[in-house]
Amino acid sequence: MNEFSSSSNFARRWVSYRSELKVLDCTIRDGGLMNNHRFEDKIVKSVYNACVEAGLDYMELGYKGSKKVFVPTDYGPWKYCSEDDLRRIVGDNKTNLKLSAMADTGRTDRADILPKKQSVLDMIRTACYIHQIPAALDIIKDAHDKGYETTLNLMAVSAVQESEIDGALEMLANSEVDVFYLVDSFGALYSEQVHYLLRKYIQYAEPAGKQVGMHAHNNQQLAYANTIEAVITGANMLDGSIAGLGRGAGNCPTELLLGFLHNPKYKLRPILQCIQDHIQPMQKDLLWGYDIPYMITGMLNQHPRSAMKFNSGEDAYNIVQFFDQIEEEE
Amino acid sequence: MNEFSSSSNFARRWVSYRSELKVLDCTIRDGGLMNNHRFEDKIVKSVYNACVEAGLDYMELGYKGSKKVFVPTDYGPWKYCSEDDLRRIVGDNKTNLKLSAMADTGRTDRADILPKKQSVLDMIRTACYIHQIPAALDIIKDAHDKGYETTLNLMAVSAVQESEIDGALEMLANSEVDVFYLVDSFGALYSEQVHYLLRKYIQYAEPAGKQVGMHAHNNQQLAYANTIEAVITGANMLDGSIAGLGRGAGNCPTELLLGFLHNPKYKLRPILQCIQDHIQPMQKDLLWGYDIPYMITGMLNQHPRSAMKFNSGEDAYNIVQFFDQIEEEE
Repeated sequence: MNEFSSSSNFARRWVSYRSELKVLDCTIRDGGLMNNHRFEDKIVKSVYNACVEAGLDYMELGYKGSKKVFVPTDYGPWKYCSEDDLRRIVGDNKTNLKLSAMADTGRTDRADILPKKQSVLDMIRTACYIHQIPAALDIIKDAHDKGYETTLNLMAVSAVQESEIDGALEMLANSEVDVFYLVDSFGALYSEQVHYLLRKYIQYAEPAGKQVGMHAHNNQQLAYANTIEAVITGANMLDGSIAGLGRGAGNCPTELLLGFLHNPKYKLRPILQCIQDHIQPMQKDLLWGYDIPYMITGMLNQHPRSAMKFNSGEDAYNIVQFFDQIEEEE
Repeated sequence: MNEFSSSSNFARRWVSYRSELKVLDCTIRDGGLMNNHRFEDKIVKSVYNACVEAGLDYMELGYKGSKKVFVPTDYGPWKYCSEDDLRRIVGDNKTNLKLSAMADTGRTDRADILPKKQSVLDMIRTACYIHQIPAALDIIKDAHDKGYETTLNLMAVSAVQESEIDGALEMLANSEVDVFYLVDSFGALYSEQVHYLLRKYIQYAEPAGKQVGMHAHNNQQLAYANTIEAVITGANMLDGSIAGLGRGAGNCPTELLLGFLHNPKYKLRPILQCIQDHIQPMQKDLLWGYDIPYMITGMLNQHPRSAMKFNSGEDAYNIVQFFDQIEEEE
């Protein structure tokens, strides 16, 4: 009954040392959901420099949000990622770090996405809910044709029927997209569910020559564990954020992920320096990270918006009241 | 390649709904390592009441520390768990909650452990390092003969050679002990290592009619994930602590564990009430829980003492300095 031979104890984690594995840091993009994308330039530059020095593969800076949908007075520059704003931080980005921006389905103007040759961006990631897959694939085709790498990030997969997931994956396998992402938007998945779903994703992706990725949230303190499970199951693109900075309970901490990967091309120290100098000081204002209200929405497989609203209110100490309210609404 | 049939998706987590599974809350015992066991009676009572109302199986109140080893002026009552102190909190404990205390090998006077008939304690847990196993088994025999349930908690197993673990488990299988505990003292284990080690523990425990248990630490945000892995692998005694209160990075949060178990005999609300009223207010003084220094000692499979010392010092913000210092000492 012993599935490892005695000479290869604990062997599975060394699979993480494979050259196809890529780490994408989404600190500024996902963290921007906590401050309407209003990071000071020095913060964005420090995260960029940390990602370069740490040897990460990709950094995501924000959204390609439509100015018709999102009024610019309400948001900072990383809601739009204009070429000017990007270049103010990264210049021509003569580094090995690739850059990405997220194009939300229904909230992006394709005209805002320049041909790749005119942009420092390397990748466009399209996030959508299950019913938006056809619209997302239009954005992906456009971005692909303009010369970008592309991913499709299917959100809230924990609340989608399995037959619908199969249908979506079949469409993705026949599309231009390079990577299918499993996105645990609600932080609701246990590792065995991640394993099960990613096996399914890989069954569609592999024959089509595509990769799968993992984007986790930490509502139940499982973002890192679920990302490890994704590595072991075969995901080759992994999202992390520095100190977990991201919406609500936040993401898989990049620093923990680098510890697991054991790949000498990744360096931990620049990430720690960035946490100390720039990320940790924002904690008291931005209030991301695991707490009991996020745990409750995660357990119940709900969007964290009710917990975010609760945490920003005056009764934020009263977690029992929040629990009673959510139970009543179930 | 799909290991679950389509009719039993995500089935493994329902194994957690088995009657043999017991939850032990060690909030006061492990948390006492952060304040020299000086909890006010109202705190201990509130945890006791929460454990009773939540339907937990065991509560651990502290240590049976020898007053010859530990000078009473230096510690609060939960370092010793005298019968008088226990009864001041629990009376005769006419509830379904069983009570335990920990007897550390080499730091316990057997004379302090009364015959079971004279005590409200139900279980004596003996913690030891690998070289102390024979001494621990003496304590266990004594406690067993006095009428107690017993466990042996083999600490720091992540730093023990596998052949030594086999030797220890063989001794345990031939002893009076009821439960073998896997203890990840350094918060260093990944889930697959928990799986591998627990399979080994079970191979020795099962033929001897004994159970295995899991006690995790959260240095790498894996305490809950590792406890889930333990449930799935077959551990039937699970340690948690309320809001994770415990030494250093703390333990598997009891509230998260109840969410996974899905057993209606367990109630979440009393635990949340206790967090809100009594545990959360202690956070700013006791400073337990995941942070970067604990992550670093966990990654390097080291005792957290250097991180605890660092966190209580004036340079506690300077995580890069801590990283450099630890790397240099490696």
